[in-house]
Amino acid sequence: MSQSVSEKLRFESDYQEGAHPAILRRLLETNLLKTAGYGTDEYCASAREKIRAACGAPEAEIHFLVGGTQTNAIVISAMLRSYQGVLAAATGHIATHEAGAVELGGHKVLPLPSRDGKIATEDLQAALESWARDENRDHMVMPGMVYLSQPTEYGTLYSLRELEALSAVCRKFRVPLYADGARLAYALACPVNDVGLPDLARLCDAFYIGGTKCGALFGEAVVFPKPGTVPHFFTITKQHGALLAKGRILGLQFDALFTGRLYWEVGRTAMEAAERIRTVLKEKGYAFAFPSPTNQIFITLEDQRYEFLSSRVSMSFWEKPDLNHTVVRIATSWATSAEDVDQLIQAL
Amino acid sequence: MSQSVSEKLRFESDYQEGAHPAILRRLLETNLLKTAGYGTDEYCASAREKIRAACGAPEAEIHFLVGGTQTNAIVISAMLRSYQGVLAAATGHIATHEAGAVELGGHKVLPLPSRDGKIATEDLQAALESWARDENRDHMVMPGMVYLSQPTEYGTLYSLRELEALSAVCRKFRVPLYADGARLAYALACPVNDVGLPDLARLCDAFYIGGTKCGALFGEAVVFPKPGTVPHFFTITKQHGALLAKGRILGLQFDALFTGRLYWEVGRTAMEAAERIRTVLKEKGYAFAFPSPTNQIFITLEDQRYEFLSSRVSMSFWEKPDLNHTVVRIATSWATSAEDVDQLIQAL
Amino acid sequence: MSQSVSEKLRFESDYQEGAHPAILRRLLETNLLKTAGYGTDEYCASAREKIRAACGAPEAEIHFLVGGTQTNAIVISAMLRSYQGVLAAATGHIATHEAGAVELGGHKVLPLPSRDGKIATEDLQAALESWARDENRDHMVMPGMVYLSQPTEYGTLYSLRELEALSAVCRKFRVPLYADGARLAYALACPVNDVGLPDLARLCDAFYIGGTKCGALFGEAVVFPKPGTVPHFFTITKQHGALLAKGRILGLQFDALFTGRLYWEVGRTAMEAAERIRTVLKEKGYAFAFPSPTNQIFITLEDQRYEFLSSRVSMSFWEKPDLNHTVVRIATSWATSAEDVDQLIQAL
Amino acid sequence: MSQSVSEKLRFESDYQEGAHPAILRRLLETNLLKTAGYGTDEYCASAREKIRAACGAPEAEIHFLVGGTQTNAIVISAMLRSYQGVLAAATGHIATHEAGAVELGGHKVLPLPSRDGKIATEDLQAALESWARDENRDHMVMPGMVYLSQPTEYGTLYSLRELEALSAVCRKFRVPLYADGARLAYALACPVNDVGLPDLARLCDAFYIGGTKCGALFGEAVVFPKPGTVPHFFTITKQHGALLAKGRILGLQFDALFTGRLYWEVGRTAMEAAERIRTVLKEKGYAFAFPSPTNQIFITLEDQRYEFLSSRVSMSFWEKPDLNHTVVRIATSWATSAEDVDQLIQAL
Repeated sequence: MSQSVSEKLRFESDYQEGAHPAILRRLLETNLLKTAGYGTDEYCASAREKIRAACGAPEAEIHFLVGGTQTNAIVISAMLRSYQGVLAAATGHIATHEAGAVELGGHKVLPLPSRDGKIATEDLQAALESWARDENRDHMVMPGMVYLSQPTEYGTLYSLRELEALSAVCRKFRVPLYADGARLAYALACPVNDVGLPDLARLCDAFYIGGTKCGALFGEAVVFPKPGTVPHFFTITKQHGALLAKGRILGLQFDALFTGRLYWEVGRTAMEAAERIRTVLKEKGYAFAFPSPTNQIFITLEDQRYEFLSSRVSMSFWEKPDLNHTVVRIATSWATSAEDVDQLIQAL
Repeated sequence: MSQSVSEKLRFESDYQEGAHPAILRRLLETNLLKTAGYGTDEYCASAREKIRAACGAPEAEIHFLVGGTQTNAIVISAMLRSYQGVLAAATGHIATHEAGAVELGGHKVLPLPSRDGKIATEDLQAALESWARDENRDHMVMPGMVYLSQPTEYGTLYSLRELEALSAVCRKFRVPLYADGARLAYALACPVNDVGLPDLARLCDAFYIGGTKCGALFGEAVVFPKPGTVPHFFTITKQHGALLAKGRILGLQFDALFTGRLYWEVGRTAMEAAERIRTVLKEKGYAFAFPSPTNQIFITLEDQRYEFLSSRVSMSFWEKPDLNHTVVRIATSWATSAEDVDQLIQAL
Repeated sequence: MSQSVSEKLRFESDYQEGAHPAILRRLLETNLLKTAGYGTDEYCASAREKIRAACGAPEAEIHFLVGGTQTNAIVISAMLRSYQGVLAAATGHIATHEAGAVELGGHKVLPLPSRDGKIATEDLQAALESWARDENRDHMVMPGMVYLSQPTEYGTLYSLRELEALSAVCRKFRVPLYADGARLAYALACPVNDVGLPDLARLCDAFYIGGTKCGALFGEAVVFPKPGTVPHFFTITKQHGALLAKGRILGLQFDALFTGRLYWEVGRTAMEAAERIRTVLKEKGYAFAFPSPTNQIFITLEDQRYEFLSSRVSMSFWEKPDLNHTVVRIATSWATSAEDVDQLIQAL
Repeated sequence: MSQSVSEKLRFESDYQEGAHPAILRRLLETNLLKTAGYGTDEYCASAREKIRAACGAPEAEIHFLVGGTQTNAIVISAMLRSYQGVLAAATGHIATHEAGAVELGGHKVLPLPSRDGKIATEDLQAALESWARDENRDHMVMPGMVYLSQPTEYGTLYSLRELEALSAVCRKFRVPLYADGARLAYALACPVNDVGLPDLARLCDAFYIGGTKCGALFGEAVVFPKPGTVPHFFTITKQHGALLAKGRILGLQFDALFTGRLYWEVGRTAMEAAERIRTVLKEKGYAFAFPSPTNQIFITLEDQRYEFLSSRVSMSFWEKPDLNHTVVRIATSWATSAEDVDQLIQAL
């Protein structure tokens, strides 16, 4: 609990530190003011207004939750009827690393092929048509919504054209579209990204703006562009144990993140660090496992190299594609300093 | 979002402010240090050690969760089998103000008579015997655990003798006992209390030490005195969307609360304020709705008086016992200042 | 497995035998005909038409399920949203003897006082108003539907006036009304009953016509007077494991029961037997525990008398109101013969 | 409801008729005898004894349920802990045609590659090892049991050697093995089968002997070779709405099926019909979609041929492997007569 906690170079995730200093400052300044509980306070109200403005969605309904798995589980179970499942890439977070939270809520995750972490429009269309055509469909789980993540679990991005095409299919089949934005700041700040918040608000039926991995202590902001999409979402949140008594802490954080474009700032810092690292990796001939343009970089290492690097830099184990190689993740964040990157480059 | 947030005198709850300054300080000091996620960091480890020491339970398994309803729902569903329910006072938090979180998890709350918020040993014994004797018991919900809160939702306390008697009945019937300590600091610091943390650890199969309402930004520490009580509790937590990515924030807070007896300090401040208020209320002839010795004070007001007071002091509406009276709650906390109390006394 | 199975006089329930002979005959006659599965066959279609006619509800949607607990659990979970509970008399079957099936589906049973097994209009109204007025209602389970049974678990009946009043309250508060008709035949055939099938269809949003306890081998017919009340009920049934592959067996039985008023016939036989028994009980000064006019008769016996009678007649243990008395149930059915009654009278 | 129900030649499934005449006879003979409810009667007891004998498992615990999806959902949810999922072939019934019943119970179906409907030992072992080795396993669904069907949904069979190998892997990893025997009679009577009931009892932790598709009106017999495998299974059954009030009807049917090897008889009739059809199909050069030796025959037809055949014989649509072909299922049963087969052969 001394200095040792930061001795090793750590690039394993984007949630290794506390919060962006601007957020902590807000918590300090307001600490002794008294407010009403459960998100009915002025800070939450203010944050909601700023998010609505940023989304170009003045009617949007906004709820603050604590974490990503929680948000996915609640939004999905609130939007599905009992006999419906959620379509997602087989590599989607809900399909892999949420310990079955969607199933605990009673719903099947219906897997679609993962195209570098993304859903392809034609796969989605095929799945929906196949269900509609199946003579046994009433004995099967009905596809009731579509889940995607932006950026994906592999750091890849949907282009605006791709998102529009997916949204069009969803609307044609009357299946809501939901986007998991756990790392949305890193998409919004990515140079090649062309999907803005207003696009998400226009094309999705629900999405969330990630805080935990984008500079907040914790927190995610669920946006329903069309109010009334899920009646009684407040009570649903409470029932899932996800309603924070001191809801203002969520409001304060999002209010800070959406003041003066801090949320984009958070993304930019990470993006610049990631770009420097990617450039060096390319120069040195490292093999990229996925074509990620955002803050997560996946490289395939020979195991000997992996062991050597691991002794100096903490990275995330991702998978073993074969017996002699390992895929690891390097992640940058708002907190990645130039010195951290310098040291990493040296280690590489 | 200006000063208006604190203009009115507010005694409505014990979660109106941020966190105890000592906690914020810890967050600030450690903000940029990098740690592993999900509660596997050094701060969580340190907090666990301090809680074990305070409980006199060196083997205890300790998990940090975010909020009270969440904690109750997860612990209860983790300890029950599908066909079991949880016995609780009809006024217990899980039976009334958790929006059906226990039922969402598939379990019935089996109500016992509320004796000023508490369960009576004889009622518990009668319920367990009645089930055991019922010829139709295999068609009924089996009582699978007992829930109580210390202090209760009415601010009352179990004495050590009462708790020992309840625990003895539970063990006789092999039904685990679980204590909700959302406001435990106010019990521990209460002059008439004789139940310490080691008693809870000795007499309960699980309990939680509340943070949210006792000085933390948020957070509850679940204690299983006997390790292995619930295998895979980590994954259960994740599956319920309750695993904080930056788990250290929970660890840091509880580490602070259990350093130098801050947790008792938090309770004492509230207790002193409550005692001053209670004394004045008694002097002025106010009617107490429940005999609470802790930080929640319930008084019955004529409606005219209620309206007058409400215009000056924010209190919690509790219930209407008849057409002309209202029961309200006044709550103190670690953040209640002497000036606040002075002003309240004047208003009274 | 020999004669011994019928040696003792058995009045313990109305599901002790197989099926009414007319039903078995239909099964025999049609046994080798081939039909489509899952209730899409001609017999189910015919039964649906006959039930619609009997209910005066030509648009009604009708589904055949296997048993009562199953039917209640499925209809209730299909009609409620996750954050809603079902109001029922504290003595209602779903509140007591269904092993927590409603809670397994995620919903709380919200108890209302039992007035000889029935819900009083004023209690219902008070509960709905109390919820609507409660400032904490968004933290509580919302009353989302009302459950009643006709006849009740105590054999008592709602009069038409009572049912109309309850239905009016439900409609005022936009809360659907659901009637459990596990023993509906015995209500319909009861001389004092004034509630017909068309009344149920007019006043309820859903109800079921019981088969299992009214002459069928098994089976219950769910009636939604307004089609489309629950979209995709077929799939919901399948998902709950309640869709019979050979659905025709349900159709055939209900087709038989609704041919030539057999369903009322079944009730009348039981009613006549019950009347004879009740008359004798009254003459002999037995104490009735509940004022039941239908096929279930509840009497309070001194324990000595209970033991004596039990040795000769098999009755259902109901409860022990005090240390020296036992309440038992005597039930008649379509299969109760005049000789059975003669022997019982002699034993009494 | 006239003759039309049987006019067309029907080979679409093995649940098109009522029950084997020997079963109906038993129902008739015993119809008016009175028994206790809920499976506590003499017929159930006798059936249990006969099944234990046939399984060579004198200690086995046996429960009678109504249908296959119900049985799978209940057994699986009863055997898993909340954070566990069930491994199954991607084509397994629980993964495809049970409308998400397992997920409704809170559990993920973890798909394994389908090898003509079967699980390969190496795939199972790889999946279990992969989970055990994954550093993120505590964030993932833990494999908690293995589901297979004998015969499979494609009519294929596990050999004794295959089953022993799967069972050995399960035991090595301490993961229970469960076999769905919806069509077990057709496996047991299949000339190439070498897996008997005692083998299932020795190698599985639970399995069920199908009645619905093997000559009964309905009903499945769950066998837990080791008693106490699932405590309180009776109440679990009740809670899932699966406890038949007149449980004797299940007992009577299984008692008949296990008297004088009727269950094998039922299988043999179907097998002989299937063999005759298969021989003709081979002679005529039809393409088999799967190498099924049991009562389900899958053939791939050109669409023109499909339309022609469909107009004369009712078969089950299975899938469209490409734009011009259709896979159909022909199923035989205990009720398939020699004349039916003659006519089908003529149509082919």
